[in-house]
Amino acid sequence: MALEQNSASAERDTVTRRTLLASALAAAALPSAARAEDAPPATASAASGLNSRRIPARDLPVPKTVSRELQAVIGAPYPLGWDDIPQDATAWKDLAFKSAASVANDIAAIGKHFDLQIEKTAMAGVPVFVITPPEIAPANRDRLLLHIHGGGFVLFPGEAGAGEGMMMAGYGKFRVVSIDYRMAPDFPFPAALEDVTAVWRVLLASYEPSRMAIFGTSAGGALTLSTILRAKAEGLPLPAAIAPGSPCADLTWAGDTVEANAYVDNSLVAHTGWVGAAATLYAGTHDLTNPELSPIFGDFTGFPPAILTSGTRDLLLSDTVRVHRKLRQAHVDARLQVFEGESHAQFLTPFVPETTEAFGEIAHFFDANLSS
Amino acid sequence: MALEQNSASAERDTVTRRTLLASALAAAALPSAARAEDAPPATASAASGLNSRRIPARDLPVPKTVSRELQAVIGAPYPLGWDDIPQDATAWKDLAFKSAASVANDIAAIGKHFDLQIEKTAMAGVPVFVITPPEIAPANRDRLLLHIHGGGFVLFPGEAGAGEGMMMAGYGKFRVVSIDYRMAPDFPFPAALEDVTAVWRVLLASYEPSRMAIFGTSAGGALTLSTILRAKAEGLPLPAAIAPGSPCADLTWAGDTVEANAYVDNSLVAHTGWVGAAATLYAGTHDLTNPELSPIFGDFTGFPPAILTSGTRDLLLSDTVRVHRKLRQAHVDARLQVFEGESHAQFLTPFVPETTEAFGEIAHFFDANLSS
Repeated sequence: MALEQNSASAERDTVTRRTLLASALAAAALPSAARAEDAPPATASAASGLNSRRIPARDLPVPKTVSRELQAVIGAPYPLGWDDIPQDATAWKDLAFKSAASVANDIAAIGKHFDLQIEKTAMAGVPVFVITPPEIAPANRDRLLLHIHGGGFVLFPGEAGAGEGMMMAGYGKFRVVSIDYRMAPDFPFPAALEDVTAVWRVLLASYEPSRMAIFGTSAGGALTLSTILRAKAEGLPLPAAIAPGSPCADLTWAGDTVEANAYVDNSLVAHTGWVGAAATLYAGTHDLTNPELSPIFGDFTGFPPAILTSGTRDLLLSDTVRVHRKLRQAHVDARLQVFEGESHAQFLTPFVPETTEAFGEIAHFFDANLSS
Repeated sequence: MALEQNSASAERDTVTRRTLLASALAAAALPSAARAEDAPPATASAASGLNSRRIPARDLPVPKTVSRELQAVIGAPYPLGWDDIPQDATAWKDLAFKSAASVANDIAAIGKHFDLQIEKTAMAGVPVFVITPPEIAPANRDRLLLHIHGGGFVLFPGEAGAGEGMMMAGYGKFRVVSIDYRMAPDFPFPAALEDVTAVWRVLLASYEPSRMAIFGTSAGGALTLSTILRAKAEGLPLPAAIAPGSPCADLTWAGDTVEANAYVDNSLVAHTGWVGAAATLYAGTHDLTNPELSPIFGDFTGFPPAILTSGTRDLLLSDTVRVHRKLRQAHVDARLQVFEGESHAQFLTPFVPETTEAFGEIAHFFDANLSS
């Protein structure tokens, strides 16, 4: 046994050395000779070994490689109060109310810009917004997109949540149904998922699943994925495509960019802020590795074609690429687009050239995958 | 005129405010009310406004979301001497010699693992390695892949550069020609590009371009792209697909992750190290925005289908996603894969599960796009 342990340990050492050496194969690494074990560590960070790396403080400039409009977004300071965590249900609801008020002008501007018709109604008792552009593309006449908004399972109640769905309707000339699902603190998991699934059942009575897609960002990206997991479990037909944007797919926050992009991202900033607390509020007493809460732990076999969107500064870039890889491992036609310099969900910023590009790609992907 | 300027300035202010507000639309941002201009800045970083953001020092742990083998790679310290910049031609050649020596064991191990036959020969006077796996997949009988190695246009001379080509031959069961192109300091730009183009002309005499692909990583990714630009300019047939891995596509180093992932990447670490100096050595007196040096400034119209590979910690993640976006803007079928936690070119680390996955995707893409 001692021999076996020694052997395993020796093998482990070999693996470690091999992979260090091996990285020199990469175009750019330095000779492994320079990494001999008797050499002193090059920097303080080397001393911390495999456990962590000390990253020095630095000034991160605004890149010149994006549009002028996006530079303004990237250069904005952290949202004031990003780490002021509401301490009770009333305070959470107050934050949700403020979040809705804060985007009211944007919602109005998007509606006006695209000349959208928005009808508030209900499906299976769940409030929804039916969004209709002035012109529906001929191929889209019998197609429908289902939109699930983001906001950490807590923010953007009512029409405030519909902005992404409205932009999709406008850019893609699609009919869109945006769900105003129940949220925490009053309605934690799995209320939101139940609402989305109930609406999906209603839509299936009127539309061919091959002519529908489901999409949403952040919490809405997670709900997009968990809706597919639940539809699979319940034997419901699946949509022809999905577009999870920067999905909040792992509520254990294990993704590498949750650390690497902390304080680099100026949208969420860090998971120690409101967003982590909101996710906890939503999860309640449920196991965070429940795939309906954290879809990264689910089985993606049989998922419809998917297009994922993120940014290089996104706190959830890791969640996005992990979902992409896991979909590919399950042989799903999954595409990834990552926008230069963008923090979490900034590809939704209205009236920025990169947003037009992101929605254009998603609309193109839906068009290629939905029956007409 | 003064009025016009005022008006433009007012419009700019409006844009700035709008996009700040707008980011609240993103799933996760906080209410814009919290960003009112009379509110004090939330953190010291806010004071720096649009110009830069102060990122605090922090400890970056090794993610648990990757294989154990890859954890060892991610947890390795910076390469000792990454910022020791050779001061003359002799020192550069010494570094190149050491780089080759450092990977000799890996090259041997890869050859043995895949039972590869490697023939050293020349095409148009350029030394090449013809790499043949023991079994060529039936569909690949008449196909050929051209490999261009990385190493900052300076490192990995001789067989040391062939490792990536050898892995492609092994994983994909393809015949591969790997080019031992001329390098700086003796042969700066455009010697490497001339060598690659000369070999491409030779191959065109024996193989259908629809049955060939070109691939390479880092400097080899840049050369893959600039070879297509030059082939277009010279009216040569193009390959059926390309696979630029983490291309060093912008020698002006303008990409956002050049800053954001500095000291996060443990392969290149920062462009202030040897890699920046190597690129300068290669460029000589040429304008760094010359598209044959920095292909991001080129016209990608008519490019063949492309698959791009990078990692979330890659210093050149921005170069990769910018190339991906620019290819998509030119309506090229371009795919992106980004691996969790990997620094520059670490998807080439031999005998790590994620490497098998990366090569599997590229081989699959080639198979889908090359005539058989």
